[in-house]
Amino acid sequence: MKYGARNKVNAKVKSVKSDGIMSLVKFDVTSPSEMASVLTTESLEDLDLKPGDKVELIIKAIHVLPIKQ
Amino acid sequence: MKYGARNKVNAKVKSVKSDGIMSLVKFDVTSPSEMASVLTTESLEDLDLKPGDKVELIIKAIHVLPIKQ
Amino acid sequence: MKYGARNKVNAKVKSVKSDGIMSLVKFDVTSPSEMASVLTTESLEDLDLKPGDKVELIIKAIHVLPIKQ
Amino acid sequence: MKYGARNKVNAKVKSVKSDGIMSLVKFDVTSPSEMASVLTTESLEDLDLKPGDKVELIIKAIHVLPIKQ
Amino acid sequence: MKYGARNKVNAKVKSVKSDGIMSLVKFDVTSPSEMASVLTTESLEDLDLKPGDKVELIIKAIHVLPIKQ
Amino acid sequence: MKYGARNKVNAKVKSVKSDGIMSLVKFDVTSPSEMASVLTTESLEDLDLKPGDKVELIIKAIHVLPIKQ
Repeated sequence: MKYGARNKVNAKVKSVKSDGIMSLVKFDVTSPSEMASVLTTESLEDLDLKPGDKVELIIKAIHVLPIKQ
Repeated sequence: MKYGARNKVNAKVKSVKSDGIMSLVKFDVTSPSEMASVLTTESLEDLDLKPGDKVELIIKAIHVLPIKQ
Repeated sequence: MKYGARNKVNAKVKSVKSDGIMSLVKFDVTSPSEMASVLTTESLEDLDLKPGDKVELIIKAIHVLPIKQ
Repeated sequence: MKYGARNKVNAKVKSVKSDGIMSLVKFDVTSPSEMASVLTTESLEDLDLKPGDKVELIIKAIHVLPIKQ
Repeated sequence: MKYGARNKVNAKVKSVKSDGIMSLVKFDVTSPSEMASVLTTESLEDLDLKPGDKVELIIKAIHVLPIKQ
Repeated sequence: MKYGARNKVNAKVKSVKSDGIMSLVKFDVTSPSEMASVLTTESLEDLDLKPGDKVELIIKAIHVLPIKQ
């Protein structure tokens, strides 16, 4: 099974909270990992990112897709 | 500084690759972390997620927003 | 009326379910259609996609924008 | 294998076009299908969607995730 | 024509820059406007947003869909 | 603080409405602004966008990330 996405994080479910329409699930990340971001080259130049730079990666929870075997 | 998003990952830039319009940046995650996903309650029920379940979290690179101080 | 998006699917509303903030709508697709995906060239190479290959296309419901005349 | 997403479309690769960073893949949808959208209840009320209503569903190609077995 | 989205901004094209696969378009916003955000109630509570609070709204360019009549 | 995104809009909170899982926040935009969109070059050509063209920019509220200092 191969996914057309750069980020695949192994995780374990920690908690589940549900509403009528939407649910929020929290996970513990179980392995150290690498992540990737695609952004415009203009934004990259504004950020002036170079290897070794420290950043925070922000991801809205709605963009995280859980897959279970 | 506070962000309206559940996922904040500390990371270090590993590599940068640029095109005219878009760029791809790779990061090493520098701290173990927790992640959150919002999905429909219907999808949650299909997945039948319970605490302790192992999952893969898939995130397209385009949804990862780097922030630098 | 022209949209800056590759995917336009003709559909008919099948059901509507509402909460205070969010709603979930189900549709029957009324015409056979073509779809498009943009992904990193790295992900494409990992998937090794060639014409004729069978795939599943996964789309979170939050990314589907209904338009009505 | 179960995905935390409402939309799963069976498709066949039709064409592939690549750049240094990003690629665009076109697919033929191989089975009639159902789709789902999550939107704010306010947007739903503005659209006044009822079963039987005809709509167009717009999805940016970047939000389509191909998965291959 | 009605859209299942909370944000509709009137704008005028300022510049266009194209690559083989992706393009970047800049716009001047032509009318003062209102915007809306959907986030988890947890994120809202972390931000502690109240009427009158000043914020910055961050939107990746990939999530902006231009429509032309 | 620099963000890897093209769109940064200054705004003031107007109203807040919360559910168990999701919340909807409305803002008044406090400064005239410029916006940017990334789309496929194919979509751009279909739209035939040229400087001066009038468009509507559609953004689902879920893609708007509020940041507060």
